[in-house]
Amino acid sequence: MDISGMLSRVRERKPLVHHITNWVTIYDCAAVTRAAGALPIMAHAEEEAAEMAAISGALVLNIGTLTPQLVASMVSAGKKANEKGVPVVLDAVGAGATRLRTEKAREIMAKVKLAVIKGNRSEIGTLAGAKAETKGVEAVSVDGELDAIARRLAKASGAAVVITGKRDVVASPSGETYYVDNGHEMMGKVVGTGCMAASVIGAFCAVEGDYAKAAAAALSCYGIAGELAARKAKAPMAFKSALIDEVYSMEEKDVKRMAKVIG
Amino acid sequence: MDISGMLSRVRERKPLVHHITNWVTIYDCAAVTRAAGALPIMAHAEEEAAEMAAISGALVLNIGTLTPQLVASMVSAGKKANEKGVPVVLDAVGAGATRLRTEKAREIMAKVKLAVIKGNRSEIGTLAGAKAETKGVEAVSVDGELDAIARRLAKASGAAVVITGKRDVVASPSGETYYVDNGHEMMGKVVGTGCMAASVIGAFCAVEGDYAKAAAAALSCYGIAGELAARKAKAPMAFKSALIDEVYSMEEKDVKRMAKVIG
Amino acid sequence: MDISGMLSRVRERKPLVHHITNWVTIYDCAAVTRAAGALPIMAHAEEEAAEMAAISGALVLNIGTLTPQLVASMVSAGKKANEKGVPVVLDAVGAGATRLRTEKAREIMAKVKLAVIKGNRSEIGTLAGAKAETKGVEAVSVDGELDAIARRLAKASGAAVVITGKRDVVASPSGETYYVDNGHEMMGKVVGTGCMAASVIGAFCAVEGDYAKAAAAALSCYGIAGELAARKAKAPMAFKSALIDEVYSMEEKDVKRMAKVIG
Repeated sequence: MDISGMLSRVRERKPLVHHITNWVTIYDCAAVTRAAGALPIMAHAEEEAAEMAAISGALVLNIGTLTPQLVASMVSAGKKANEKGVPVVLDAVGAGATRLRTEKAREIMAKVKLAVIKGNRSEIGTLAGAKAETKGVEAVSVDGELDAIARRLAKASGAAVVITGKRDVVASPSGETYYVDNGHEMMGKVVGTGCMAASVIGAFCAVEGDYAKAAAAALSCYGIAGELAARKAKAPMAFKSALIDEVYSMEEKDVKRMAKVIG
Repeated sequence: MDISGMLSRVRERKPLVHHITNWVTIYDCAAVTRAAGALPIMAHAEEEAAEMAAISGALVLNIGTLTPQLVASMVSAGKKANEKGVPVVLDAVGAGATRLRTEKAREIMAKVKLAVIKGNRSEIGTLAGAKAETKGVEAVSVDGELDAIARRLAKASGAAVVITGKRDVVASPSGETYYVDNGHEMMGKVVGTGCMAASVIGAFCAVEGDYAKAAAAALSCYGIAGELAARKAKAPMAFKSALIDEVYSMEEKDVKRMAKVIG
Repeated sequence: MDISGMLSRVRERKPLVHHITNWVTIYDCAAVTRAAGALPIMAHAEEEAAEMAAISGALVLNIGTLTPQLVASMVSAGKKANEKGVPVVLDAVGAGATRLRTEKAREIMAKVKLAVIKGNRSEIGTLAGAKAETKGVEAVSVDGELDAIARRLAKASGAAVVITGKRDVVASPSGETYYVDNGHEMMGKVVGTGCMAASVIGAFCAVEGDYAKAAAAALSCYGIAGELAARKAKAPMAFKSALIDEVYSMEEKDVKRMAKVIG
């Protein structure tokens, strides 16, 4: 998998990555998209969401602070993206924690053809129909093997499925599975690292049509940035700043040397 | 008062702290909650606010960018929290500055049984019926002694009342008053330090049933983090980052050595 | 032009700068306003927007994540500001990118008497009726000379018109043109620098009745902060933090020594 080549294409082509996302990490999603070399746009009004999606290279939907109205914009933008062949990434933040989140994630999956569905183990477990527990937006537990769960949802949905964790798992709808061992434990202690991962995945999907590969490569680059950041910063805010800055500063030779993707 | 013991309990139990808050400092509120050792969740849709509150350890309501719709979610979540015995903290941002803020703060106080009401001297003065002036979200003036005002509102409302300032004042409904002399003047120059204080108070209320003590201890820890941060950072953005990082890094022995709580 | 004198007046008078702005950079807009010495307030509910505008020194409207409802609040606040003689700054984020943004920017211009209209070359080009292309919120191209476009829109609208770029152009309604050569290329790589520029312009308009001069002086100070920040930080998040901190820390003698305003 040519991970550094994909990063290089993001930096050269500067795709527009349209987000309809949450109000907590919206700045960080924009910042990491820009740091990766793409151009972020955040436009959630139903009156323009579809029009913006139509001119974008990828669309990222994040239900972290969803309302029914916001989900309506997501569906409208997602349908237009489908029409135009623009890949759509769903970050299923908090699926399983409340009925609204679970139902709305399922509604988006039913109405929009997704390129990537991303979540932690309990969020994806919930959407795959496994027994899972989510505490707020934190994974607590899920019954079953993660790669089997990811593959099942990938096959059922036709989307690449990403389960983030110490080892990220990516399953393609046609049965490939990738394991990404980049990253650093500090990434689990900082608010927003999950949301930012979806933004980087969106940027990579804009330049690579095999969305499972794009997701695995994005997670590898992002994880490498986390490893580099952890050398410099030991506490959460310093780490987050360094993480985004390493996404910006990392060289393709760092990626080649440090990437740990299996499969 | 066992301040470091409360901090230790937050770190061990990792309570979920549900916020319905403003769009300016929402990230920082989540970040400081996480840094303190608790788990933040931000969920404002009326369709899920109560459900999330029911599974939380504390609920923090902040009217910094309120709308009537958002206040309806706050009331719905607050009532459910009351039902479940989950403590509710109100940060009365800008009460006194516009009619909407004053009226909605009063509406929340009337409909939800609060554990803690927090504000600066003119916000609390307004809610206590004193003559007060608020400029935007900044305190300008208030007539009367702060501790008398806090005690009056605590008695009338049944909530612990916090007035933040150079010396923080905390009054319990049963007549105790605590004075917290931790903190640093830089905290008054950075956007969001007040909102973050309410998040830390929420985390402490999740592990300590005497809410006046919980609030005083939270303000002491948070103030100590500010003192530690001021040793490292002299300008606002660097200071804010250091402040949150010190909440994360501070050791219980720092708290024991540096705490300044009277009463 | 007494640039450092205006900065000094902002720091002494601490004007309230009311924002109705976007959810991406709302924190940074508040932070840079505070760093400049003014007091930020963010209040977007239609029920209080006008009341807050009435007591403010300036009103900043930013359509970065607009909805029709938010624009209704902007118009309500803007009309009240007009009534009270409070200067209104419009940051036309993304005008030209979607129909909603272009139409709503024009609606605000039609209903509110603006002190300053600010945008990049394609946003202002669109509003001036030139052929222009905007990609998300990034300028792509515009037909025609920038200063002629700025002057045309200034004359037609009665507002000072700012086109940001490597060289910022400011045109007054009465025909003066100012060119600001402060700034650093890193400012073009960081999310939010454009929005923050509008906040600083708002703060300066609160203390200087010649709004073209106020805008040019604000952009000069802000650009100088960018130059100072670039000495310390080489990557986007570190740079943004340093930029705001330099707005806070810069001395009037730095401004006198470094200002580059022509006209």
